[in-house]
Amino acid sequence: MSELLVFGHKSPDTDSIMSSLVMADLEKFLGNDTTIACRLGEINKETTYALNYFKVEVPQFIESISEGTKVILVDHNEFTQSANGIEKAKIMKVVDHHRICNFQTTEPLFYMAEPVGCTCTILYELYVMNNIEIKPTIAGLMLSAIISDTLLLKSPTTTIKDIKAVEELAKIANIDYRVYGLEMLKAGTDLSDYTAEELINLDAKLVDMNGNNVKIAQVNTVAIEDVLKYQTDIEKAINKIIEEENLDLFMFIITDIVNSNSEAIVLGKRTDMVEKAYNVKLENNKAFLPGVVSRKKQVLPVLQENA
Amino acid sequence: MSELLVFGHKSPDTDSIMSSLVMADLEKFLGNDTTIACRLGEINKETTYALNYFKVEVPQFIESISEGTKVILVDHNEFTQSANGIEKAKIMKVVDHHRICNFQTTEPLFYMAEPVGCTCTILYELYVMNNIEIKPTIAGLMLSAIISDTLLLKSPTTTIKDIKAVEELAKIANIDYRVYGLEMLKAGTDLSDYTAEELINLDAKLVDMNGNNVKIAQVNTVAIEDVLKYQTDIEKAINKIIEEENLDLFMFIITDIVNSNSEAIVLGKRTDMVEKAYNVKLENNKAFLPGVVSRKKQVLPVLQENA
Repeated sequence: MSELLVFGHKSPDTDSIMSSLVMADLEKFLGNDTTIACRLGEINKETTYALNYFKVEVPQFIESISEGTKVILVDHNEFTQSANGIEKAKIMKVVDHHRICNFQTTEPLFYMAEPVGCTCTILYELYVMNNIEIKPTIAGLMLSAIISDTLLLKSPTTTIKDIKAVEELAKIANIDYRVYGLEMLKAGTDLSDYTAEELINLDAKLVDMNGNNVKIAQVNTVAIEDVLKYQTDIEKAINKIIEEENLDLFMFIITDIVNSNSEAIVLGKRTDMVEKAYNVKLENNKAFLPGVVSRKKQVLPVLQENA
Repeated sequence: MSELLVFGHKSPDTDSIMSSLVMADLEKFLGNDTTIACRLGEINKETTYALNYFKVEVPQFIESISEGTKVILVDHNEFTQSANGIEKAKIMKVVDHHRICNFQTTEPLFYMAEPVGCTCTILYELYVMNNIEIKPTIAGLMLSAIISDTLLLKSPTTTIKDIKAVEELAKIANIDYRVYGLEMLKAGTDLSDYTAEELINLDAKLVDMNGNNVKIAQVNTVAIEDVLKYQTDIEKAINKIIEEENLDLFMFIITDIVNSNSEAIVLGKRTDMVEKAYNVKLENNKAFLPGVVSRKKQVLPVLQENA
């Protein structure tokens, strides 16, 4: 059994799904034929749209991994966001674009991280670096991930490398990335048939901040008020999770991808962290956060400082 | 002050010193003119030999760094092996070939690690990747580091990438690396004018293993018995450090670089870790470890498993 499993974080977003598929493709060229793309949760509508568009099957679902399993982590490194049993796995490689935290190995490994907008931008570089040809379908998957993570190159996390990668990948995939990207993002904002429980778990990250258990979930929309209609149900679902998972803070970010603003619903005994971080007073458990669209750049570090 | 400090680990070996010099050179090409190569301790005789040979000055000594200082870590990532104050620094990049442990950041960063024999092998790849010309002197420094870390490509940590890098770098530096390498390694085995205290600090690493404070020091020699003559003084010095630094285990490895074996002097309340790891019984606080030359590959992981 020299199977090598590749997976992104729990509550997978488009980057986590595409990165696992793309990395599995890359590994085949690097000589690892037994690499299997996996996912740790349900795929969302945005990802579904992209996979359907490029006619690619969803990665295999796994819940936990057994001791000694060889794995590659993409789009995450924190064990709290990874597969159950990750502590006992053999981590061969990590390709990621997040801070490094709650991560350790007993042996040296391949670790490639860059402060860019998307893991797939780094994977694109790895293809170039290793002189491996990128197939149009693979280019389409990478393109989708970068558009998703950077909100069509508009998020403050966007770097020159992301822009360059999108331009090159669009040529290979032979696609107008602006038209395709907007359609894909819009597909992801269709939240109509999710329950409140599903909504707060679509893209949720559990983070340890100075000993505080913090969960930060995010959804994209074209109309914040459409989501806020369900505030009562959402709060009920959040309070249930806070109790079940013993959380100190739950922040649910509703991001308007057209106007680049967010509204947050904030619950838990450490709501003061959000109030201090953004110098706001919660009203009816809510705060409007003008210009905030990036959890990684505009939420995680400022909360961390106030933990 | 947008100064950017580059440094390797405490008790610097040749790789830590050369990597800081080389990385500072590389950064200049990448647009960071204010990068300063630094070191966290005295340089050893092997490194001195190499720097003299290539007529390069020793990096600047620093002891601690102040809050918010921008830094690049080379050849290490564990905060316990880094500059005092590292927790409050802004870590921009890491280039390393060790396991990842006791390391975390609040923001995304550039992190490049590979399971190869030497940090300079990865730096060599970064020059190639970025299409930056390597000057003969810089090639000589990288060559020296790889020869040092792999004991002239004989250590089990040696990979194909290290061998390739050495061959390419030897061409650029216009040097017979076998002849030069042996002279450099021999210069490092001249331990005659060190005190016992100096000897156990020449290349010492402090590692946290399951809550145990473990320090592992290593010296290279061409005759183990020459070092063992001073066992009494060495043990006195080790016991002093154990008390001062509240260590649970101190392992002093004397490596015969000609025959590729080691003898270890082991003290502290967790000497059982070494006995279990190598299935040996210490005699007179010593154990002979046939075939063991690599702390990273043949000592750290096996001790960790028995911590």
